[in-house]
Amino acid sequence: MSIVGVSGFAGSELARLVAEHASLSLVGVVADRWKGSKLGEHVRVPASVAKLSVAPMSEAVNVARQGEVALLATPAEVSARLAPELLAHGVRVVDLSGAFRLEDPAAYPRWYGFDHPAPELLAEAHYGLPEVASASTRAGGARDARLVANPGCYATAAILALAPLVEAGAIDPGSMYVDGKSGVSGAGRKVEERLLFMEVDENLSAYRVGNHQHTPEIEQALSRAGRVRASVTFVPHLLPVRRGLLVTAFARLSGKVPHAEVEALFRRAYAPADLVEVRAPEDVTLAQVAYTPYARLGVRADAERGSVVVTSALDNLLKGAASQALQNLCAMIGAPPLSSH
Amino acid sequence: MSIVGVSGFAGSELARLVAEHASLSLVGVVADRWKGSKLGEHVRVPASVAKLSVAPMSEAVNVARQGEVALLATPAEVSARLAPELLAHGVRVVDLSGAFRLEDPAAYPRWYGFDHPAPELLAEAHYGLPEVASASTRAGGARDARLVANPGCYATAAILALAPLVEAGAIDPGSMYVDGKSGVSGAGRKVEERLLFMEVDENLSAYRVGNHQHTPEIEQALSRAGRVRASVTFVPHLLPVRRGLLVTAFARLSGKVPHAEVEALFRRAYAPADLVEVRAPEDVTLAQVAYTPYARLGVRADAERGSVVVTSALDNLLKGAASQALQNLCAMIGAPPLSSH
Amino acid sequence: MSIVGVSGFAGSELARLVAEHASLSLVGVVADRWKGSKLGEHVRVPASVAKLSVAPMSEAVNVARQGEVALLATPAEVSARLAPELLAHGVRVVDLSGAFRLEDPAAYPRWYGFDHPAPELLAEAHYGLPEVASASTRAGGARDARLVANPGCYATAAILALAPLVEAGAIDPGSMYVDGKSGVSGAGRKVEERLLFMEVDENLSAYRVGNHQHTPEIEQALSRAGRVRASVTFVPHLLPVRRGLLVTAFARLSGKVPHAEVEALFRRAYAPADLVEVRAPEDVTLAQVAYTPYARLGVRADAERGSVVVTSALDNLLKGAASQALQNLCAMIGAPPLSSH
Amino acid sequence: MSIVGVSGFAGSELARLVAEHASLSLVGVVADRWKGSKLGEHVRVPASVAKLSVAPMSEAVNVARQGEVALLATPAEVSARLAPELLAHGVRVVDLSGAFRLEDPAAYPRWYGFDHPAPELLAEAHYGLPEVASASTRAGGARDARLVANPGCYATAAILALAPLVEAGAIDPGSMYVDGKSGVSGAGRKVEERLLFMEVDENLSAYRVGNHQHTPEIEQALSRAGRVRASVTFVPHLLPVRRGLLVTAFARLSGKVPHAEVEALFRRAYAPADLVEVRAPEDVTLAQVAYTPYARLGVRADAERGSVVVTSALDNLLKGAASQALQNLCAMIGAPPLSSH
Repeated sequence: MSIVGVSGFAGSELARLVAEHASLSLVGVVADRWKGSKLGEHVRVPASVAKLSVAPMSEAVNVARQGEVALLATPAEVSARLAPELLAHGVRVVDLSGAFRLEDPAAYPRWYGFDHPAPELLAEAHYGLPEVASASTRAGGARDARLVANPGCYATAAILALAPLVEAGAIDPGSMYVDGKSGVSGAGRKVEERLLFMEVDENLSAYRVGNHQHTPEIEQALSRAGRVRASVTFVPHLLPVRRGLLVTAFARLSGKVPHAEVEALFRRAYAPADLVEVRAPEDVTLAQVAYTPYARLGVRADAERGSVVVTSALDNLLKGAASQALQNLCAMIGAPPLSSH
Repeated sequence: MSIVGVSGFAGSELARLVAEHASLSLVGVVADRWKGSKLGEHVRVPASVAKLSVAPMSEAVNVARQGEVALLATPAEVSARLAPELLAHGVRVVDLSGAFRLEDPAAYPRWYGFDHPAPELLAEAHYGLPEVASASTRAGGARDARLVANPGCYATAAILALAPLVEAGAIDPGSMYVDGKSGVSGAGRKVEERLLFMEVDENLSAYRVGNHQHTPEIEQALSRAGRVRASVTFVPHLLPVRRGLLVTAFARLSGKVPHAEVEALFRRAYAPADLVEVRAPEDVTLAQVAYTPYARLGVRADAERGSVVVTSALDNLLKGAASQALQNLCAMIGAPPLSSH
Repeated sequence: MSIVGVSGFAGSELARLVAEHASLSLVGVVADRWKGSKLGEHVRVPASVAKLSVAPMSEAVNVARQGEVALLATPAEVSARLAPELLAHGVRVVDLSGAFRLEDPAAYPRWYGFDHPAPELLAEAHYGLPEVASASTRAGGARDARLVANPGCYATAAILALAPLVEAGAIDPGSMYVDGKSGVSGAGRKVEERLLFMEVDENLSAYRVGNHQHTPEIEQALSRAGRVRASVTFVPHLLPVRRGLLVTAFARLSGKVPHAEVEALFRRAYAPADLVEVRAPEDVTLAQVAYTPYARLGVRADAERGSVVVTSALDNLLKGAASQALQNLCAMIGAPPLSSH
Repeated sequence: MSIVGVSGFAGSELARLVAEHASLSLVGVVADRWKGSKLGEHVRVPASVAKLSVAPMSEAVNVARQGEVALLATPAEVSARLAPELLAHGVRVVDLSGAFRLEDPAAYPRWYGFDHPAPELLAEAHYGLPEVASASTRAGGARDARLVANPGCYATAAILALAPLVEAGAIDPGSMYVDGKSGVSGAGRKVEERLLFMEVDENLSAYRVGNHQHTPEIEQALSRAGRVRASVTFVPHLLPVRRGLLVTAFARLSGKVPHAEVEALFRRAYAPADLVEVRAPEDVTLAQVAYTPYARLGVRADAERGSVVVTSALDNLLKGAASQALQNLCAMIGAPPLSSH
């Protein structure tokens, strides 16, 4: 397959993961930032892949057409235009941006700031969170999908945290609260004042309060999972670490599921999931998941207060982006799933 | 006055603040860790104070008796025994621990792990959060108090964040959620594995989920402020920074106060407060308050979701401990308030 | 006095220090970045100073003329043009850049990349390292100087570390080596890729190897101090911390001073210096000096290897810039020296 | 093979590396800290290895005897007693401690604080720095060695940095200076005050100035490489990062090799080395080598000052310990070398 936008943090991880996977073959990589150079000058990858030339974005379609599937690690507005073109050439697409995650076209001007150029694809796209099949409208999952929308990093952590509770009707879906904390790689490879060391180190603050684009994505997934109208108030914060993301979700217990059974609900829900671990909430740490494809969750119900807390951690560049994309890719082409190592 | 437990992080800040305040006179300092040495060997303080000898804890009462007020920066179980002794000798006390913050003696075994040795003092103690007078049962505040319980760091930030909303009846007091994030100095000067650099750096996790001792304190203050039964689900997290604490509070709007007036409610509530700043929630950052006596808050109502988010930041060792103690101390003795510089 | 370039990290520290000093009066501040706003919107300063309007750079001369002394926290090329203009108007100048530190005009194209517009001022400028008077050619120090060149941050630490040894002839001045490590604030307030959190955090590297502009400054000062031709190989490194700078200097013992007397040599040299502390080399840490005006040094001679190691730490924005500038300023106007608190 | 001391940072890396290497078979692991539990409860390793039970240290010999080679990640004093026992049972040993690195038994009381219990093994031990064969006295390298002393982390970086220059006679071997900076994992998994987050974060200081045990190791290796008496003044510093080590070495050019040829000397010396990269000194960064088995070096000669600077970086737990141990292990048993990926 090919990777478009290979010079970004997620794109670089994709290159490494695809190169290491025995069943996958990386035939082309695209990024203006590294155009004209060899991939190996920028990313440590096996020799076979290191010698790939990086093509400019203007060649994205030509390069992608040489593969069966194109992995897009491009900004949403770029993916929104590029994906339809690739599909038209018969190339299947896994898009790591938000361009095809939301079913409602009207959400794009509101949350992403642009009018969607290919709204007809929104209903077709498969929302690819493998451990929460009900987050997608496609019954067959990624298998027959032409277009997979890879979930957002915070969204993955939040949906994993709340889906079992919403599906079981254990909480009030109308008042869920998610506090997200992410390492700086989640902001992408941009030269901006807010991403300077002097701005981030020894500091913490919330951003996009009330208007982070993962909000509609989390609500959509949970609404589908629980067949309810989910409302999630989501606040992200920028953490002074490189890698890792943790969300702490709060909700009100409905009383439908006894407090003592809430944790068992999680263990059952994720027992089949190789890459989702359930532990005590205090054992859900960035260190346990960073540089791995795992997500780790912990839940604790508070009988006295009628509330439940779920902590959910993952590596924002892996389970929150590149390794989840590989899970979807492998499902699409029938390759062995991502090693659970 | 005197400082007992001057070798702790908060104790050291107290020494510096008292030494710098023109109207205050530091006459004695106590700490086993530095006993027998001079204060100036450990903390940068003006010469007059640098030459004070640090007495051992066994001399705490004798040393404290030489002053008008004793500032206790000792663990709760120690303060619980020491404060009554000092009061019996006519020394007024500002206690930085949780030993006298809760009115209900039964809360101590449950949340602090010990039986309170002087429960009769709990009703008398003034809960000293100057900007939220209603958090205390003492009408006169610190002025005539013999014993002031200095609030906890997370508790200060959380109460400041929610009190105006609870007092105005703007939110449902039965389902408030507080996500706390604190720098490591908040854990105190202990040699423990969880506080090692290799455990904290590049990492984040929640701790004491469902059983952090600031929970009853926050609920008590908000219950008093709003004359309601407040329920707060509080989850703290350890941040890889040295100083600074931020809480993000979530609550459901009751509808009593129009969304558009929620921010004005905060600005009015804190207009008289020299040390509380109200800004946009994204401008509430650790950097803005670290090493200062300020607290900074931001609020945003979400009309669509019927929720409100408040971010609240302060320096855990200053507004969350030592500088707030000085605010209380100055009020007790009628000294000019802490400079708002 | 006035501060030109008040919006930089050093400039902001200057504003705070001047505002806090009882004998100094800040009458004007200049910076394009904050032009048109009040100083207090950006820096926490006392009310009297907070209301100062920040003037644009185009008004620098007019603003500076209202004061007795102008503190320039501008880039070297800007200071090089501005200082002569201010001097012509009778305003004395303390320049925090390198524009007037080197006596040889030819050094400017080589080390700073520009031709000096006012080379005639280079001989007049006083190199202001108060604790090493011999680093300057002006016998009277700052007292009667019209123009003071405030030393560089690494240079201050390195000169303090080596001057006593060079003056005593204890080392071979032809082969001195200085390894510098500085926090990121030393790079200034620029939006550059190399200063991004993702580039700096968990990372370290040397930069400007063989061509850092503090090299000629260190050699000039030590040559003057020891009346020898000093050669210093200096390599700076960017540290993933905000504040603080430490240099480790290595030199070969000449044999002239017995090994056992080398440390005493330092203690004698700096005994009169309020702001220079001498400790064991392992007790020279960033934490001890950050946010203070102190420099701290430690020395250890290795008899077996015939070498000596000196560690030297200071806060790059304070003793490495702003507080040293205040030391010079106070000497210029005869104000009480910087409090040693 | 087996790993003794698998619970340490280096031991855990060994487990991961051995488990991932197709030709190696991990049959036993030992550590008191994890005794009685499964390896997979502590380290993410493939399933086959995850189920290994961790034996207590008291069983070390029994466990190690089941394998061909034992990797010791134990403190020097422990290795010094354990290795002879294992050798007596016919088990070959790769020791990651300093217990067998120095040829002179008298160096052990001086630098390590204990009398060596098996000094007769010191002459036999192979000093295993694969890219600098001349650092060992064994002509055949690790191939036929019963006992391999894996080099220290700082020592590896310093020897790689200086060996080419010493071997070519390009520098004065009597005055070499090495400034080391290492991430905290290099200090091992200990609960000590100096390793607390509050002590390390935002801080830097030198330690063991004049008495770090890597000093005699570096001098011994360079003396052997250059057939001279090498003198190295080495000063390590503790960096506020988790992983990564960089040394900056300074030396005086002898004049034997023209300045312009110094860099070529390095490129030639390391051209055959898969795991040593030569770049510009500013491109030698922790980020480039952390989490990889590579070392990266850069050199710059200063004609004017007659000095040379070499920067040398590696991951202290990998090329500075575990991955270098694997290089030695593979050489011992004739397995394919460590993949250069």
